Amino acid sequence: MFDVFGTCVDWRSTVVREGAALGLPERFADGWRGRYQPQLETVRSGAREWTTLDVLHREALDEVLAEHGVDLPAEQRDELNRVWHRLDPWPDTVPGLERLKERFVIAPVSNGNIALLVNMAKHAGLPWDAILGAELARAYKPQPQAYLRSVEALGIASREAMMVAAHNGDLATAAGLGLMTAFVPRPREHGPGQTSDLRPEGSYDVVATDLIDLAHAL
Amino acid sequence: MFDVFGTCVDWRSTVVREGAALGLPERFADGWRGRYQPQLETVRSGAREWTTLDVLHREALDEVLAEHGVDLPAEQRDELNRVWHRLDPWPDTVPGLERLKERFVIAPVSNGNIALLVNMAKHAGLPWDAILGAELARAYKPQPQAYLRSVEALGIASREAMMVAAHNGDLATAAGLGLMTAFVPRPREHGPGQTSDLRPEGSYDVVATDLIDLAHAL
Repeated sequence: MFDVFGTCVDWRSTVVREGAALGLPERFADGWRGRYQPQLETVRSGAREWTTLDVLHREALDEVLAEHGVDLPAEQRDELNRVWHRLDPWPDTVPGLERLKERFVIAPVSNGNIALLVNMAKHAGLPWDAILGAELARAYKPQPQAYLRSVEALGIASREAMMVAAHNGDLATAAGLGLMTAFVPRPREHGPGQTSDLRPEGSYDVVATDLIDLAHAL
Repeated sequence: MFDVFGTCVDWRSTVVREGAALGLPERFADGWRGRYQPQLETVRSGAREWTTLDVLHREALDEVLAEHGVDLPAEQRDELNRVWHRLDPWPDTVPGLERLKERFVIAPVSNGNIALLVNMAKHAGLPWDAILGAELARAYKPQPQAYLRSVEALGIASREAMMVAAHNGDLATAAGLGLMTAFVPRPREHGPGQTSDLRPEGSYDVVATDLIDLAHAL
């Protein structure tokens, strides 16, 4: 079970590139993504009813464009919002997943909605066996239901599932729920000045340099 | 969006074969499958809370084994119940889906649960982009939610989706909800004496001889 944003795809480079084409600076991408956790929290807390990531991304885009003093027609905003559907994979992601798929069921357990994850898989060539996560459980990681409902949907026990992520927080929650864990660092996810998640901060079942290395390890 | 049992996989031949290995006659398969619609109806009507097909299959298996006077230990029943996870595809299914996948998003909209459909896809090589249907909507076809929730999850309009099935009833419901429809006859789904669904009984967007022919048509 794979985290997607950051772990499988390099969201920042793709969003920076599409922003640059519109004359927006790199911090446009960071500002957009920076609204992600506070937005999810409004849904997790129950303050807001279930809302997909596509909708949350679109609202955040309006805010961040206003912050940069950029006005775009609605149609162009919708198109830019779908950048999250066409994120590029890290170089090891597709060969690593292809190899893992030979022996295991591989599926995202992501906060992305199904349409986003399906379109991303078509764009990036991610060979998922199923798409699990947020929309199935109507819960956002690290809410336990996002993990547990995914495990249940596969008809397996938590101890038979392995969560793969570049984020210590994601793995800490998964481990607490009885899943196996694999840490794959992505030290450039947040760009050259990244300070978080550079190293494993827990006792994980596997620490791998990338997804090809993970396939070798398993 | 594909119906699975009968349309993509030849459930009867596989169940007959595994039954024969236990000394059970062909009608064992028909008796087991014959309990399917009445069981689903108990869930559709609300008389019974949401229950996955794996659980319904297991209950029906106990009944049909008793009818044949066969006693098996629970472990062997569980293993036999998973025959629905390892159904063989029709000869055209995998090449047809592979070709359709080059241009379209392909997904089952089935009454099968996710674990069943994932395992079947691994066994049969069905290259789904996502797995939709019953478990996502917590509804069984022909309940409208099973179709509409699947369309919604892909972020498309009903008129952008095409339901592919070997069953006129499935397509009539889909057409009524605004989906495009394709009929692919499977005249041996129920064995040599099949009398139903031999011909298209509605006005469908496509009538194809098999899934390779459907790919050509689209």
